[in-house]
Amino acid sequence: MKTLVLNSGSSSIKYSLFDLNGHNLLVSGLIEKIGEESSRHRFRLHNDAGNSDNNDAGITIADHRQGLQAIFTLLSERQAIARAEELFCIGHRVVHGGEHFRQPVIIDAEVIAQIREMIPLAPLHNPANLLGIEQTIEQLPQVPQVAVFDTAFHQTLPPHAFHYAVPADWHKHYRVRRYGFHGTSHHYVAKQAAAYLGRELNKLNLITLHLGNGASATAIEQGRSIDTSMGLTPLEGLMMGTRCGDIDPALPFYLQRSGQLSAVEIETALNKHSGLKGVCGENDMRSVHRKAENGEQAAQLALQMYAYRIKKYLGAYYAVLGHVDAIVFTGGIGENDAWLREQCCANLSALGIDIDTDKNAHIDNDCAAINAGDQPVAVLVIKTDEELEIALQAVECVSQPTESHDHNPA
Amino acid sequence: MKTLVLNSGSSSIKYSLFDLNGHNLLVSGLIEKIGEESSRHRFRLHNDAGNSDNNDAGITIADHRQGLQAIFTLLSERQAIARAEELFCIGHRVVHGGEHFRQPVIIDAEVIAQIREMIPLAPLHNPANLLGIEQTIEQLPQVPQVAVFDTAFHQTLPPHAFHYAVPADWHKHYRVRRYGFHGTSHHYVAKQAAAYLGRELNKLNLITLHLGNGASATAIEQGRSIDTSMGLTPLEGLMMGTRCGDIDPALPFYLQRSGQLSAVEIETALNKHSGLKGVCGENDMRSVHRKAENGEQAAQLALQMYAYRIKKYLGAYYAVLGHVDAIVFTGGIGENDAWLREQCCANLSALGIDIDTDKNAHIDNDCAAINAGDQPVAVLVIKTDEELEIALQAVECVSQPTESHDHNPA
Repeated sequence: MKTLVLNSGSSSIKYSLFDLNGHNLLVSGLIEKIGEESSRHRFRLHNDAGNSDNNDAGITIADHRQGLQAIFTLLSERQAIARAEELFCIGHRVVHGGEHFRQPVIIDAEVIAQIREMIPLAPLHNPANLLGIEQTIEQLPQVPQVAVFDTAFHQTLPPHAFHYAVPADWHKHYRVRRYGFHGTSHHYVAKQAAAYLGRELNKLNLITLHLGNGASATAIEQGRSIDTSMGLTPLEGLMMGTRCGDIDPALPFYLQRSGQLSAVEIETALNKHSGLKGVCGENDMRSVHRKAENGEQAAQLALQMYAYRIKKYLGAYYAVLGHVDAIVFTGGIGENDAWLREQCCANLSALGIDIDTDKNAHIDNDCAAINAGDQPVAVLVIKTDEELEIALQAVECVSQPTESHDHNPA
Repeated sequence: MKTLVLNSGSSSIKYSLFDLNGHNLLVSGLIEKIGEESSRHRFRLHNDAGNSDNNDAGITIADHRQGLQAIFTLLSERQAIARAEELFCIGHRVVHGGEHFRQPVIIDAEVIAQIREMIPLAPLHNPANLLGIEQTIEQLPQVPQVAVFDTAFHQTLPPHAFHYAVPADWHKHYRVRRYGFHGTSHHYVAKQAAAYLGRELNKLNLITLHLGNGASATAIEQGRSIDTSMGLTPLEGLMMGTRCGDIDPALPFYLQRSGQLSAVEIETALNKHSGLKGVCGENDMRSVHRKAENGEQAAQLALQMYAYRIKKYLGAYYAVLGHVDAIVFTGGIGENDAWLREQCCANLSALGIDIDTDKNAHIDNDCAAINAGDQPVAVLVIKTDEELEIALQAVECVSQPTESHDHNPA
């Protein structure tokens, strides 16, 4: 059962082809710099003979249509898919599903219209996602296509968690509320955690920490997201690579008045020149560590801030949940940064959280427990796989067509 | 030892006269609507014969100079102060001391210049505070005058707690950082908690919750503030009467783009039409409760949100502190709202927090413990008294003149 996953950005298309009979990744690839003279297409064939990397630099891919053609041609030439009919379905990552989409949905004209309607909420992402969807439908009209939303997992947040304390009509008129993102990753690692612990997800309370270039924390009660750190947009919450996370809401107004900066300059700075990069000039966590080890105070401060803010969310969500079965670290940083994991969990034995230094230093599985043996709260490091999760959800959606059309019964 | 405390707002002056030999409040009063035709001067004489209220309505007080004259005339006529020399000192509340003032300071020309320098950080408050200071010095030049800052208690925050993850030069050039407010109240109730518990403050870890019209939480480690929920301005943190507290930093930009609202309109809405008022149309907590009891869903939501956000801060600061000796509720709402206290502490027995319903319902002291007897974390309800704390700090400052001039050794 072959399933293709597409993540279409404004000038890039990321893709993964799975054979879900064995959860096998067959091909993964990335087309970049679409529309530029020197585009790039990198891909990897994960076949029985081992991985094989390929790299087409210097080609020109004018638009998403050509990009998708290049992908389908490659998959056909390399015999990953001999005929379109071999594809059971295609799963599209869509960033913003608003309040309308609580689960994956088979794409039709109505769904496309709804995703378009959500563009003001995700002006950078939804148009690019749509472009990929529409071009794919044009080229492979016979294959079922499924939209999987980054926001859907968090649609279970209760009103007291998703409402901001702002004028009530802002929700009604402008759809202002907490949506949350990274839902596919939080959901995936939650399921992996349940499997690892040998428990049912709907009986588990978890705090999942997705720490990549973007970063978010989610409180999961009996398998359902009940709070998450990203909000109306992916700017709120934890400190990130280049994003500020939580700040005083009055800061932009203050700077506009006092600092001779425009709203556009401030918004750009909070998204692109803040976070780790803003504090120490580097947004690659490994570089930040190197600088800190070389004694650079700004890098040391950036690391302390990054860990401190995670710890505050750990505490906040612990209080909200009342009881926590496991904490999960995932994402590029969460999976690889032992120092950070130790800092986040330091001095939390009053909460039943304690890390085994040795286990924390030696992660050699996609899922590993690093808590000290006698502690009530499991601390897990789990490799996330958003593409696999999108593929699984897409297949499930296509296999249950009646339910999948019931986007939002409310 | 008589001490006068003055809190000068843009169109009001609040004052309290203490005899600190017995911590006795002698006179308290409030002049309102300064500059309007129908100003108002209310005061209360707290003498041995019992309280006596007075109310001068319909007088005209043109400016702060006339307002202060009215106060000094009243104090003299009622023989509260026969001669100016009877005043040991005058303590002025000043909202923003920036990074310069870590403690109270005797006011001289240099201090006035520094407070003026801080006006961009507190454009509504510091100018009014200064007006009161300058007029008082003019009228009573022989009495030592002390500035007591709302921000000073939080100047012990470590860098990882006071820095925002924004471009580093915003701190250098624009003084962007977390300052925190309500410092006088948090400090006062912390001292009261230590006295009540029979412990030394510098060996206590506390979470203090000042819940009034404004609201803030503070994490106190061994007597020192190490984190607090208000930030660059008093808009950040908990949900308040009309202020939003924490939101997505991108919300104002989103609204400017999508909602046809100007920056000024949004800032005004976040300060004046948000919080309880924004969610349910009422900012008086008693009215919110009445509406909720009458079944109004918006009021019920507002209460749930208000409590939920406090609970998140309780958890966050618990994690930061690692060990908590006591939680303190104070401020008009914190002191009087038993339902709210119960909600905030519900389902936290994993943290050693549990409230005795009966004790919580019957507070008949300025300081009362409401935790269940066998719980490790004391939960206290303490009546705050910012005016008394300002008076005490002012007297201490004048009594140690050499140290008091050392505003900020760094």
